Amino acid sequence: MKKILILNGPNLNLQGRRETAVYGDTAFDEYLVSLRRSYPGVEIDCRQSNHEGVLIDALHEAEGRYDGVALNAGGYTHTSVALRDAVAAVAVPVVEVHISSILAREEFRCVSLLAAVVRGSIMGFGLDSYRLAVDYLLLDRPAGSID
Amino acid sequence: MKKILILNGPNLNLQGRRETAVYGDTAFDEYLVSLRRSYPGVEIDCRQSNHEGVLIDALHEAEGRYDGVALNAGGYTHTSVALRDAVAAVAVPVVEVHISSILAREEFRCVSLLAAVVRGSIMGFGLDSYRLAVDYLLLDRPAGSID
Amino acid sequence: MKKILILNGPNLNLQGRRETAVYGDTAFDEYLVSLRRSYPGVEIDCRQSNHEGVLIDALHEAEGRYDGVALNAGGYTHTSVALRDAVAAVAVPVVEVHISSILAREEFRCVSLLAAVVRGSIMGFGLDSYRLAVDYLLLDRPAGSID
Amino acid sequence: MKKILILNGPNLNLQGRRETAVYGDTAFDEYLVSLRRSYPGVEIDCRQSNHEGVLIDALHEAEGRYDGVALNAGGYTHTSVALRDAVAAVAVPVVEVHISSILAREEFRCVSLLAAVVRGSIMGFGLDSYRLAVDYLLLDRPAGSID
Amino acid sequence: MKKILILNGPNLNLQGRRETAVYGDTAFDEYLVSLRRSYPGVEIDCRQSNHEGVLIDALHEAEGRYDGVALNAGGYTHTSVALRDAVAAVAVPVVEVHISSILAREEFRCVSLLAAVVRGSIMGFGLDSYRLAVDYLLLDRPAGSID
Amino acid sequence: MKKILILNGPNLNLQGRRETAVYGDTAFDEYLVSLRRSYPGVEIDCRQSNHEGVLIDALHEAEGRYDGVALNAGGYTHTSVALRDAVAAVAVPVVEVHISSILAREEFRCVSLLAAVVRGSIMGFGLDSYRLAVDYLLLDRPAGSID
Amino acid sequence: MKKILILNGPNLNLQGRRETAVYGDTAFDEYLVSLRRSYPGVEIDCRQSNHEGVLIDALHEAEGRYDGVALNAGGYTHTSVALRDAVAAVAVPVVEVHISSILAREEFRCVSLLAAVVRGSIMGFGLDSYRLAVDYLLLDRPAGSID
Amino acid sequence: MKKILILNGPNLNLQGRRETAVYGDTAFDEYLVSLRRSYPGVEIDCRQSNHEGVLIDALHEAEGRYDGVALNAGGYTHTSVALRDAVAAVAVPVVEVHISSILAREEFRCVSLLAAVVRGSIMGFGLDSYRLAVDYLLLDRPAGSID
Amino acid sequence: MKKILILNGPNLNLQGRRETAVYGDTAFDEYLVSLRRSYPGVEIDCRQSNHEGVLIDALHEAEGRYDGVALNAGGYTHTSVALRDAVAAVAVPVVEVHISSILAREEFRCVSLLAAVVRGSIMGFGLDSYRLAVDYLLLDRPAGSID
Amino acid sequence: MKKILILNGPNLNLQGRRETAVYGDTAFDEYLVSLRRSYPGVEIDCRQSNHEGVLIDALHEAEGRYDGVALNAGGYTHTSVALRDAVAAVAVPVVEVHISSILAREEFRCVSLLAAVVRGSIMGFGLDSYRLAVDYLLLDRPAGSID
Amino acid sequence: MKKILILNGPNLNLQGRRETAVYGDTAFDEYLVSLRRSYPGVEIDCRQSNHEGVLIDALHEAEGRYDGVALNAGGYTHTSVALRDAVAAVAVPVVEVHISSILAREEFRCVSLLAAVVRGSIMGFGLDSYRLAVDYLLLDRPAGSID
Amino acid sequence: MKKILILNGPNLNLQGRRETAVYGDTAFDEYLVSLRRSYPGVEIDCRQSNHEGVLIDALHEAEGRYDGVALNAGGYTHTSVALRDAVAAVAVPVVEVHISSILAREEFRCVSLLAAVVRGSIMGFGLDSYRLAVDYLLLDRPAGSID
Repeated sequence: MKKILILNGPNLNLQGRRETAVYGDTAFDEYLVSLRRSYPGVEIDCRQSNHEGVLIDALHEAEGRYDGVALNAGGYTHTSVALRDAVAAVAVPVVEVHISSILAREEFRCVSLLAAVVRGSIMGFGLDSYRLAVDYLLLDRPAGSID
Repeated sequence: MKKILILNGPNLNLQGRRETAVYGDTAFDEYLVSLRRSYPGVEIDCRQSNHEGVLIDALHEAEGRYDGVALNAGGYTHTSVALRDAVAAVAVPVVEVHISSILAREEFRCVSLLAAVVRGSIMGFGLDSYRLAVDYLLLDRPAGSID
Repeated sequence: MKKILILNGPNLNLQGRRETAVYGDTAFDEYLVSLRRSYPGVEIDCRQSNHEGVLIDALHEAEGRYDGVALNAGGYTHTSVALRDAVAAVAVPVVEVHISSILAREEFRCVSLLAAVVRGSIMGFGLDSYRLAVDYLLLDRPAGSID
Repeated sequence: MKKILILNGPNLNLQGRRETAVYGDTAFDEYLVSLRRSYPGVEIDCRQSNHEGVLIDALHEAEGRYDGVALNAGGYTHTSVALRDAVAAVAVPVVEVHISSILAREEFRCVSLLAAVVRGSIMGFGLDSYRLAVDYLLLDRPAGSID
Repeated sequence: MKKILILNGPNLNLQGRRETAVYGDTAFDEYLVSLRRSYPGVEIDCRQSNHEGVLIDALHEAEGRYDGVALNAGGYTHTSVALRDAVAAVAVPVVEVHISSILAREEFRCVSLLAAVVRGSIMGFGLDSYRLAVDYLLLDRPAGSID
Repeated sequence: MKKILILNGPNLNLQGRRETAVYGDTAFDEYLVSLRRSYPGVEIDCRQSNHEGVLIDALHEAEGRYDGVALNAGGYTHTSVALRDAVAAVAVPVVEVHISSILAREEFRCVSLLAAVVRGSIMGFGLDSYRLAVDYLLLDRPAGSID
Repeated sequence: MKKILILNGPNLNLQGRRETAVYGDTAFDEYLVSLRRSYPGVEIDCRQSNHEGVLIDALHEAEGRYDGVALNAGGYTHTSVALRDAVAAVAVPVVEVHISSILAREEFRCVSLLAAVVRGSIMGFGLDSYRLAVDYLLLDRPAGSID
Repeated sequence: MKKILILNGPNLNLQGRRETAVYGDTAFDEYLVSLRRSYPGVEIDCRQSNHEGVLIDALHEAEGRYDGVALNAGGYTHTSVALRDAVAAVAVPVVEVHISSILAREEFRCVSLLAAVVRGSIMGFGLDSYRLAVDYLLLDRPAGSID
Repeated sequence: MKKILILNGPNLNLQGRRETAVYGDTAFDEYLVSLRRSYPGVEIDCRQSNHEGVLIDALHEAEGRYDGVALNAGGYTHTSVALRDAVAAVAVPVVEVHISSILAREEFRCVSLLAAVVRGSIMGFGLDSYRLAVDYLLLDRPAGSID
Repeated sequence: MKKILILNGPNLNLQGRRETAVYGDTAFDEYLVSLRRSYPGVEIDCRQSNHEGVLIDALHEAEGRYDGVALNAGGYTHTSVALRDAVAAVAVPVVEVHISSILAREEFRCVSLLAAVVRGSIMGFGLDSYRLAVDYLLLDRPAGSID
Repeated sequence: MKKILILNGPNLNLQGRRETAVYGDTAFDEYLVSLRRSYPGVEIDCRQSNHEGVLIDALHEAEGRYDGVALNAGGYTHTSVALRDAVAAVAVPVVEVHISSILAREEFRCVSLLAAVVRGSIMGFGLDSYRLAVDYLLLDRPAGSID
Repeated sequence: MKKILILNGPNLNLQGRRETAVYGDTAFDEYLVSLRRSYPGVEIDCRQSNHEGVLIDALHEAEGRYDGVALNAGGYTHTSVALRDAVAAVAVPVVEVHISSILAREEFRCVSLLAAVVRGSIMGFGLDSYRLAVDYLLLDRPAGSID
């Protein structure tokens, strides 16, 4: 049985309540229910933290326990070299996920320190971005695969 | 029956033969066969052109004929304001697709003029990026939907 | 009898239908009718293309055939050194025209590669920008005239 | 009877005498005579000042007294946030005018703080730039009109 | 009874002992005593943490419990997109406070990621900056109020 | 009896009428009445000018006549080295005041040349920013005081 | 018999007539005659297009048909990622040619997107730049050769 | 008899009293006495204004009345395109003078908009900078003289 | 007996396992054994955390308990103003250590916010960088010592 | 008999031994033998120095003694204004030569201070770059010749 | 008897012959004769070198032997940190001299690394710049003098 | 017996006498005595030159003669591509040394062109930086060693 970790960064615990014009009004737990229902044979775990260090710890621990990580690093995407180094350090496949399109917002959001070290990046599709990330992780491609 | 257009920009006619370390060695036609097989009830058309103007024309024509466009604008992604304006001008949903991660290559590739006007962007998953784009387009979300 | 060429660049074939909050909802053909009516003794031709190369060709051909060109290069304004070189290469007077004010929009639109090689630039007056360009071209000033 | 104000900024009192290779050798008063003659049913007033504050005061006072202002802010175009705020603050239509093309000279002249708050900008046509501004103001378009 | 939260970021636990030429030599607890004495009918709580995540958590928790937050985010002011998103996410009024003037120090301190999402910013008045923040929060203005 | 000078720069004479979405619709005179009422034992004078030079002169003259100056330099905040030098040149305490948050608007407003030479800066609280400035000036701190 | 393709980009069809102070007044056809005469045993073909897409197509087609390409991409040199990708995609040796020194003109001409993917670059020698390119291509060095 | 105008800009009326560590503590009037004494056969006039417009007017008026102008534009040096244009507009020789070295202070002082249009620049010698400017102006070189 | 603290930042718990081409394959614990053996009379403690806040706390606590700190802040080196302020706030000597040369890697690693507040910086010597840091700290120089 | 000077800058005395992946493994003396053999009626001298001043002196001395100089300034290409001025100062034709393509390496090598003052630039052809330079110099074009 | 050293940098040995439109056509030796004649009681020595190191050595040696140095560092002005450090290291008064105005030429000449460490800077007066430097050095001001 | 070369760049011959607040007041010779005493079985040679070319020559000559070089390139650190290329060209281990922390001084000192090609960099420890460099060189690590 495949195991996927959704790792959510800062303020995603408020998803559905905060800046709804940007992020929509569906709470993440509610979304998770429907997401899990779409992938009956898959275990989808979810962790959220506002702490950069906790996210790094979680990435370290994911190695060997999960078949893939869908990482929405929130605001740390743009500023955390430490998180980038954590993604580069672990062997588990990581997909970068964003609800909104980071390349279409304020300039300080137009940089992703993660992009160079993840398998790929998905952004702008609302909560559907997570679904696409899971789709990819279940394809189970080897690292470095490009065809 | 759903109709999806894959619109490929410059040099993608050489996919599978050019810079294989970056783009892999699967020809696009070959890939298309397997892609179509994965979506039996969907018509997936594909056009490729090295001409910026032809791509703009194609986007104009796609409106009303297709349920969605997966656009890999290649090198025009980074430089074409005209193509961006074309995407913004048409009502059909457009998803931005890249085989490699544009945010992890040369600095001049780290800019996407398209990101602000597409539904979302998918990059870095090799040819699987197209598959994820089709996945999204078949979800058939209304414009501006974010949940 | 004076002959003026209006040369429209990418996406202006969609004028009146695209991004109407920025460009208004009058189709160009409709506008052209009223424009021609205002200048009874003048032949006003109009060409549009989404292709950079076609626009360059058209400029080359305009030399000797027209008394002036009102050029709205659309998105190519900001990116096309080739178009700039074409304007510099031909002897016919060219006026730069923009419906919206390019200096008041996204940063990538705040540059005009054309400005240094045209007779002058008119921007921000909506479709009236074309009218002012025709006004100028009919004044029939010699090149380099500044009084 | 329509009333138009031409508001000239710093050094334009020397027009016709200064840097004639750039600005031509027609004095502004002389030009004004011919301009007024072209618009017989229009009152065209003209004020000039080298003082930023006087120009701001004049814009404040123009509201309600004039049907439009043709503003050549000279060197203040590139540096005066205060003047920009003044234009934004008043209800009278303002057109930005430049004798030379500011986008084709030194880099510090390539910025217009005014462009975003005026009706439109006209540059590079020599003194004819004023004529085109008057042409526009007499069209008497409502604010925000773009067709 | 009004409740105000003073939320202090990294190194403010050392206030009064560290870099006293910049921050003065009054310990924060000592200052807090006199501050509370000035506002007899107000409950002024104070939390400090060196952890970005703890500050984000605290902002989330402040909603509904406090009438306002005086936030001195210290070094995180300049670097934390996550903290900015937290301020934007919560409904409680937040005032940005700095002991020194961040606009008058090293260049990396001249940016505030918070400024766009707080009610207002107060900087450079030493510990008096907190007092002014409390003054404002007690005025109890509705969000978006500007008169 | 304490004497405070409110020194208002360009366009603040239009406060309450201009860009009301940004600056509110309370006229400054009206606001001044209520402000003075809040500080019965204090003489609050107010001067406004659109002229940079007049503001510099006023600062020179304030020395020795006032116990403090609340300076809203408007658009000159971002561009006037001369005004900055004037603030640095006089011994009277000066507080920088802005109705809106300059750090949350256009990029050219994100710089304050004054910040490094004033006692402190208050921005974003609407007209309440003046009130906070007066609050500070009445505390009567010695120059350089930071506790 | 060796076959060399000279591939000329935008506006080079006007060579000899346009901006003669920069590019000289020898027409390209005339120059070609003398060039071919200098290399009696070599077939030197020449194509010119103002269309970026046509140039890309021509590069794709040159592979296997020519022993080398002397490419003067004109204005596309500075802006076309697509053309760069085309050069990188084909196996035929390509030499970058410029009549004038692009590093000694306007700043937007000081960038060559091609330089990193061609065999070498020759610029500034007038039409002689083509001659030197042919000289090199006839040396018939293997790719990556540096001695 | 030679006539020299010393034209002093903003805050120089406070010379000797303001920021004495930077500008010294000799009042300008006092200095002027000794300066005049050093040049017995020369009439040295002096004007000072904090108003940019007054300085521009003064330059316009100096033409034909003075043999040379020693201009210390103070803070306007770095920001005033209008003043620069005024210097370029008049025929009288102008020398740029600064008490301190503008190239050795804050970055915003490291630019001189005047340098390109004056005869030469003298900076950093304290009040002696004026003396050297007078020395030069009395040499009475023709414009453009470089030997 | 001297006491030295080695304070390791994010991802250094994976030393020896992560990106071994950059950081080598010796685990830190293993290295620590040999390091301690080289300094028999010295107590060398080691803490590691992925949490910025924990590192700041640890620096605060090190004051008075250790004779010196060898700080490898990992990814926080480049982004953490808070950590920098912590180093500046405490009296204990701190040496900046990096396994790889941060000045020879990606541009975002070429900045050290710490360099200005530590005793000195050592980078690029692999794990030997720690050894050199200990060498320095045992020299026991007074703060500010430069001979 | 024609006389050509090859002037080699810093580290070119190590050609063939240093960074052979970039510069190849042919020693320059060895290459020079074969080069001279290709041009039997030409005297080809060669000087090398690691000293910027020696290179400048050599350029000064070359005037009148040589028919042309092939200058590979090595690392001084990117940094030496003095060398640039020397090339501009002498009448002898100078061609800029680089073994590797400076536009395709580190960013600090992407600038040539020489390009604006030489006859033309040749880069990226390995040691063949020298051969092409000699080819050009033997064409014996007058200065400024562009056909 | 006063002793002044004129220290000339690269290419100034060609003064009078090189780029005469910029530097004039008077040879330096010729100028020196007239300069010495103007200062009968002063010994004016002159050294020139194209070698950065020789100039540094000369500055070191000037200390104690000369009452002042007029330094025209030519192209090294803009690039040599080493020369700057040499000026800062020696006790003899140094005046920076330029024949042309470095602030009015190419951007790479608009920086002076010397300005912050010399007594003052004189530029743009042609060879008269040297005369003004000698004038200043004979005033014999103490270091740091600003009145 | 090990042989180490200390190679000192410009102005280090004045160590102990120049800018003592930055560099201390111990002469280098004096320091060298104590340094040599600390390493009894090691031959420590020292060369100093103000000439960039001499330093390059010295690096070339060090190969094969020394077991390591401690290089303090002074001002050339920030500007010399030629010196960097010399370090990259030779096989001897080179350690970069700075007395002060170059990352904590003027911006032009914050770049090291050497860092990418040396074994490692040591900065900010005063003259102790040399001692640490010698410590490292005596460890005698193979090139590329990172454990």
